[in-house]
Amino acid sequence: MILGRFSMITPRVLKGFRDQLPHQMIEKNKIIAALTQIFEKFGFVPIDTPSLEYTEILLGKGSGETDKQIYRFEDHGKRDVALRFDLTVPLARYVSQHYSELIFPFKPYHIGTVWRGENTQKGRYREFNQCDFDILGTEAIGSDLEILLMVNEGLSALSAGDFVIHVNNRKILNALLKMMDSSDKSTDVLRIIDKVYKIGTEQVITELKNDVGLNGEQLKILINFLNMNESNPVFEITGEGIFKKLNSIKEMLPADQQGDVEQTEQIFKTIEQIGVLHHFAYNPAITRGLDYYTGLVFESFIKDRIEFGSVCSGGRYDNLTSLYSKNPVSGVGGAFGLDRLVALMEDKALFTDRSSTAEVFIFQLEEKFLAQYYNISRQLQHSGINCEVSLENKKMGLQFKTADRKKIPYVIIAGEVEVNMGRYNLKNIISGVEWKELTISEIVQKIKEKA
Amino acid sequence: MILGRFSMITPRVLKGFRDQLPHQMIEKNKIIAALTQIFEKFGFVPIDTPSLEYTEILLGKGSGETDKQIYRFEDHGKRDVALRFDLTVPLARYVSQHYSELIFPFKPYHIGTVWRGENTQKGRYREFNQCDFDILGTEAIGSDLEILLMVNEGLSALSAGDFVIHVNNRKILNALLKMMDSSDKSTDVLRIIDKVYKIGTEQVITELKNDVGLNGEQLKILINFLNMNESNPVFEITGEGIFKKLNSIKEMLPADQQGDVEQTEQIFKTIEQIGVLHHFAYNPAITRGLDYYTGLVFESFIKDRIEFGSVCSGGRYDNLTSLYSKNPVSGVGGAFGLDRLVALMEDKALFTDRSSTAEVFIFQLEEKFLAQYYNISRQLQHSGINCEVSLENKKMGLQFKTADRKKIPYVIIAGEVEVNMGRYNLKNIISGVEWKELTISEIVQKIKEKA
Repeated sequence: MILGRFSMITPRVLKGFRDQLPHQMIEKNKIIAALTQIFEKFGFVPIDTPSLEYTEILLGKGSGETDKQIYRFEDHGKRDVALRFDLTVPLARYVSQHYSELIFPFKPYHIGTVWRGENTQKGRYREFNQCDFDILGTEAIGSDLEILLMVNEGLSALSAGDFVIHVNNRKILNALLKMMDSSDKSTDVLRIIDKVYKIGTEQVITELKNDVGLNGEQLKILINFLNMNESNPVFEITGEGIFKKLNSIKEMLPADQQGDVEQTEQIFKTIEQIGVLHHFAYNPAITRGLDYYTGLVFESFIKDRIEFGSVCSGGRYDNLTSLYSKNPVSGVGGAFGLDRLVALMEDKALFTDRSSTAEVFIFQLEEKFLAQYYNISRQLQHSGINCEVSLENKKMGLQFKTADRKKIPYVIIAGEVEVNMGRYNLKNIISGVEWKELTISEIVQKIKEKA
Repeated sequence: MILGRFSMITPRVLKGFRDQLPHQMIEKNKIIAALTQIFEKFGFVPIDTPSLEYTEILLGKGSGETDKQIYRFEDHGKRDVALRFDLTVPLARYVSQHYSELIFPFKPYHIGTVWRGENTQKGRYREFNQCDFDILGTEAIGSDLEILLMVNEGLSALSAGDFVIHVNNRKILNALLKMMDSSDKSTDVLRIIDKVYKIGTEQVITELKNDVGLNGEQLKILINFLNMNESNPVFEITGEGIFKKLNSIKEMLPADQQGDVEQTEQIFKTIEQIGVLHHFAYNPAITRGLDYYTGLVFESFIKDRIEFGSVCSGGRYDNLTSLYSKNPVSGVGGAFGLDRLVALMEDKALFTDRSSTAEVFIFQLEEKFLAQYYNISRQLQHSGINCEVSLENKKMGLQFKTADRKKIPYVIIAGEVEVNMGRYNLKNIISGVEWKELTISEIVQKIKEKA
């Protein structure tokens, strides 16, 4: 078969999809490893679900309309199937299906790929990773608390910069609306408040007045509750202010409506006792829009990159499994925005831009010493040092160039004399410092000291 | 919205697809982590490609016929797209597309999901993971050697049992056929030899005689070369026998055809010098069927589970990129059979069947001590011990039961007295041994000693 140039296929990926080059994938894997470690520290367990499911499972019955967001098609067996577009719907199906095999409270984490055929504007991809964690089957306050502590530990582990976790409880607003005899307006009020960062305080007030029909007194209570004033454009309340604020809300409410405020107080008190309150804020304007959340809601921000939006969000929901099972399961959970975190950390130049996982590059001066080079390599590897042997027997200058391009900091140079001695030359090619005739353990020591 | 029982959707997955329960995913992740660590020890770098590609990229131009194996459909933009069915074709596209951005020899590893709509007989799934590793852009003997060393290190790290890596070089058989003036019969001979484990020695000889038309003298040479005799049903040659065998083949060949045998000898010699020859065998019957391999080929087996087939296979190929690029790139690589390894290790009962990642379960005796429990937990976590706090304030008996069902070996019990002392009770619920009033560091010590 002879392929002329006209029969070649232009190598390219679909719009909204992308390859990961090594330096990108190395960093992404580091983030995944850090989060996985945190999940497991807290005893969360990994799960997975298929990428492809019955469309009925993902979209519900009678979803006849073509949803532009969903990759949906007919498979070889004429089944109506679709690629999962989030990890929450598959989790609901999973918990319903395996109900009797799971141990509740069930604490799964799920890192997986999802697909959405949406428009591909800046930073939006049609294939991306989600990283969900949930506590299912309990309404105990410990579960809300633990989810928040996990977010704190996760964002601390990532070292993406100082962060703040904005916490709210939807039920507090609902209690206020009930007090104002406006429970029926809850959905509209939530929807409008959720837009505040886009449309501004003025416009929120206008819409609450004109569209929802709140009166002057009601508006005053809401504006006060939401802490909407020009000097605090993100509406966050921190430190001891949190307890003052919650107390003032409690005092507004009748005694039988104070429970949710007290629960929120208790969560913040416990966070304070654990010593991590400086990473948290109370933000009554966080509602998570029209999502299915019913109680606790939260969003988190890297302080010097607020414009990237929330990097970890979530909340409490009721009856996750209602579509598939008569066993009601409520829960609380969150998701780290993996791709957003990668973009943010790249923007902050926090990545090393390495194109190798190795710290040491062993030159190949003579092919006949390959066994010796790999033996040196093995000894370093067993000491926990990642190590490459130069695969080709090229000129020294070219081998230096390879190590340099791969950004491998150390090289080991060993010819006949050194191999026979069992002592080798080490060079730090960044600092230019060289050491002659070192034993393996001396080499290990130099590298571990980052000499 | 009231959902009657008739409007519920039965929770189920598509045929050939599956959920991963926690105890399965924990083990799968362990295997992936072990392999990743080995890849990185050798300086291999992670890459990724999209799940969905242009069908033309995956199947070549003019692939009009419907291939039952491929999940193929039209996307929202009327593009002909398909889910990747292996990681090799995407790698060829990737290397062609990013040629100028990559550093050669390029050493990628790629762990990813692939989809094939094939029949779902025992242990065959339509969605599964592959785990590929390659060295691209060099024909140096060091690269063949390194791939084999990686397989050895990988299988050692997995602790799935004693193993053997069967190595061959297709070029040796080709040199023999050339000597017999039968180079044109190479494809047929390879195809028939490849079937030997299925059809047996007798049938192979019959087919080589009748279908290929080899004469008596030619058959004798081949049978002798292939080491086909009843006493050695897997045709493997180990230890010093390897060098004797290769030498006897070399003596059969004219001087100008001995190069490939010598190269194979050199690889085995180096493996011997490195001290791992006991994990290798020379097997002239390994051909890897009609694959695109051109030189080195290998398969690997766990000795007490030969029937599971090869758990890591691969070889050397030429011009991987010919379909997409004028830059020819040859390489050598392999793939670990992740799902096969999981099934094999499950069969050998090598899995712990844990449903938690935690080693310690801290009882919740009073909700007001949640902060203290999480503080104990944090201290253990910082000492590298995964630790769960009981989320619910239930009776002791129920909390014991939860720890037991999750197979968490240690529990910490602390009520008011213990919390005030800062000393806690530890119990190993497997052995039943209990310790009273331990400090955190004493607890850490007991757990690390597996007391």
